[in-house]
Amino acid sequence: MKDELKRELASIVGSDRATDKPEHLVAYSYDAYTEEHLPELVLFPESTEEVSKIMKVAFRESVPVTPRGAGTNLAGETIPVRGGVVLCLTRMDKILSIDEQNLIAIVQPGVINMDLQKAVEKLGLMYPPDPASWAAATIGGNVATNAGGPRTLKYGVTKDYLLGLTAVLANGDVLKTGGRTIKNVTGYNLTTLLCGSEGTLAVITEITVRLVAKPRATRTIRADFQSLDDCSDAVAEIMSAGIVPAALELMARYTINAVEKAFNLGLPTDVEGILLIEVHGYPETLETEVSRIEDILRGKDVTNMITAQDDAEAERLWLARRSAGPALMRVRPNHIVEDVTVPVSQLTTMIRKALEICHNHGLEVGVFAHAGDGNLHPCIVFDRRDEDEYKRVEAACEEMVHVAMALGGTLSGEHGIGLAKAPFLSLEMDEVALRVTKGIKDLFDPTGILNPGKFV
Amino acid sequence: MKDELKRELASIVGSDRATDKPEHLVAYSYDAYTEEHLPELVLFPESTEEVSKIMKVAFRESVPVTPRGAGTNLAGETIPVRGGVVLCLTRMDKILSIDEQNLIAIVQPGVINMDLQKAVEKLGLMYPPDPASWAAATIGGNVATNAGGPRTLKYGVTKDYLLGLTAVLANGDVLKTGGRTIKNVTGYNLTTLLCGSEGTLAVITEITVRLVAKPRATRTIRADFQSLDDCSDAVAEIMSAGIVPAALELMARYTINAVEKAFNLGLPTDVEGILLIEVHGYPETLETEVSRIEDILRGKDVTNMITAQDDAEAERLWLARRSAGPALMRVRPNHIVEDVTVPVSQLTTMIRKALEICHNHGLEVGVFAHAGDGNLHPCIVFDRRDEDEYKRVEAACEEMVHVAMALGGTLSGEHGIGLAKAPFLSLEMDEVALRVTKGIKDLFDPTGILNPGKFV
Repeated sequence: MKDELKRELASIVGSDRATDKPEHLVAYSYDAYTEEHLPELVLFPESTEEVSKIMKVAFRESVPVTPRGAGTNLAGETIPVRGGVVLCLTRMDKILSIDEQNLIAIVQPGVINMDLQKAVEKLGLMYPPDPASWAAATIGGNVATNAGGPRTLKYGVTKDYLLGLTAVLANGDVLKTGGRTIKNVTGYNLTTLLCGSEGTLAVITEITVRLVAKPRATRTIRADFQSLDDCSDAVAEIMSAGIVPAALELMARYTINAVEKAFNLGLPTDVEGILLIEVHGYPETLETEVSRIEDILRGKDVTNMITAQDDAEAERLWLARRSAGPALMRVRPNHIVEDVTVPVSQLTTMIRKALEICHNHGLEVGVFAHAGDGNLHPCIVFDRRDEDEYKRVEAACEEMVHVAMALGGTLSGEHGIGLAKAPFLSLEMDEVALRVTKGIKDLFDPTGILNPGKFV
Repeated sequence: MKDELKRELASIVGSDRATDKPEHLVAYSYDAYTEEHLPELVLFPESTEEVSKIMKVAFRESVPVTPRGAGTNLAGETIPVRGGVVLCLTRMDKILSIDEQNLIAIVQPGVINMDLQKAVEKLGLMYPPDPASWAAATIGGNVATNAGGPRTLKYGVTKDYLLGLTAVLANGDVLKTGGRTIKNVTGYNLTTLLCGSEGTLAVITEITVRLVAKPRATRTIRADFQSLDDCSDAVAEIMSAGIVPAALELMARYTINAVEKAFNLGLPTDVEGILLIEVHGYPETLETEVSRIEDILRGKDVTNMITAQDDAEAERLWLARRSAGPALMRVRPNHIVEDVTVPVSQLTTMIRKALEICHNHGLEVGVFAHAGDGNLHPCIVFDRRDEDEYKRVEAACEEMVHVAMALGGTLSGEHGIGLAKAPFLSLEMDEVALRVTKGIKDLFDPTGILNPGKFV
């Protein structure tokens, strides 16, 4: 990018919201995946109009634009692999309205998930999608990746709470999709098409979401298992008992040990698996559900079972699960959180296979899972500077993907395709599906300036 | 269409599954909307392969193809306005598999909604989408229109239960979308793009849906209101009490009287509105919810309240609501079921306006509503042969659409655009949205042979 062009783009937002200082460019060259690439300019727009003006110039000059929020995404979706502009939307951080009567919130894309959660909780409401990175991740990023989280099991993912979007197309045109009603069948579902499109179709600048009533009561149970098979069998039994927990989270031995080593939370280090189960509902219902779950757990090889008696105890139980990612990150310099997802009946098989594959490659792996929906996160820890080890990491990831596909699963349950899964796309999508995908990309972004070099 | 071409197309399915007899063509010239147009040929394929072969020939010869199921759709989506072929998918009526472990069913598009419901209920499961026409409507039609129904309020619409599709594109290519896992973020969401596309993008030939556990218990309450305002205020209070009923259905006076006249069910004919409320959950929870609802109702101008004591009584209460459409159909030769949808806080205003508009045009209208999600069905009854009356019907529909839009609503909550709402599309979608819509249509169907003459 020539200086003149940089100046023109910077002038749209003002010099205090534009930077090409090397130390700033480095800060926007990476996300929560392992790759990195320097952008040439970082812009911080504050309105749809500014984004539109930026895209008009970028379109005219064929400059790559990579939109991003907090960069907590795990598949390399926001790495500006072709340089150009990083469009950082974190300054668009206003909750524009919360409509308690109609259970709707309208937010800018830079609003942090946790901030929206807290704002609506004060009103007795809940915004269900809760990715692990919720304390940092933006709603815009959640929409761009169709983020899930532990509560997905009961409540569904980001797309299930989206009512409408404002988005800027590659040429600067402003597209409005959906509306304010929960039921809406007017025209093609462009809202859901943009959700999960990873910044390759448009820049999302305003988001209308639906809210739900906060559950009256929640109960949290932790169970420690001698046998991993028993642990995942318990998952299957709970699910087929017709109970839909809000969360049904599994941690395997390596992860448990990493958490215990890093944070000393008093977890047992001699068990094969821990299940964390949370149920939401009415107090009187929850007693029934908790009893039923405890009965199922008692029928398994459980060494210890804790049912939280109050919020503080529940919070302590959750802390162990929330610490899984951070703990594993400390073990070695780098980590990749895989995101293989299989039909829930294949969970045990997939966990065993993931452990076996990593073991065969001499790799260390901490497994944790949103077990109830078959969404497994084998987190491989390694040193990126060790080329041989990194090759083994890549080989293990590829093998896990093949196993997941063979078990009827998908390349990605919730982390997205980005750079991480792009090489495997043809395993899941045949020639026709890839052609349609390419056609949609060309329609929205004919010159390929939006987040180029990614999955399409 | 030349005879030779008809013969070529008929030979794909065999002469017993192809017809151009005038009496058959008439039978496929209309749906549940008021318009009609004769096709030239009706084909009944039994496999994806046959559909693909048919589309290849149609594509080569630029023959219009209008896919249809049972034709219960209400906006004219399946009327073959450009003639050509009607592709009737009712012979593809197999439930291919029900996977109890993973809560998935795979069905052909011609499976009748009720048949799927009954098949999964036997296994203790439920397929939630329940359009009023469920006893006749096909799952393929439900997907093509993204059908809702009374239970939408708690459970969501058809798109919320779709995991994957097989669909044949205009050129005969077979597109597979989605998969078998609930979480799936691989590529753009083509499954939801096809859902609600009303046969304009592809012919759906196989459908993977997710199932849920059947609720442990259900309770049904009917309340009769002296005042329509009190009736819709009760809706708002129930919703904001954090209760999510499975259904919250409203019938206004004209509808009540029509039902009573047609079927003699013992409904009060002197009330302004009836609410039918159904809650699903655990027996012990439902008592709490029923008490809370009864308390809210007692605070209103309710003349009578019935809480069903058993399934048979609940079924009798539901019969009144299910009879609304059939009863109104008998009043005059024709009817149009409008589908205006507004944020739920605007429900009372919208009902009042709808009644006022129809009254001003000297029209008879029976209002019923999926009140909990602001989805209103003013059913205008008239005689299509009376040109003056029909003009007034059209004027009233147009006015209701404008009011709904002004109240923050949508053109269609669940019935679709088809022919009925096509003239109003630009009220909800601006130039950019319409251009993107047209672009998607051109991508999937470059020569415009799939259900031509409809909303795109």
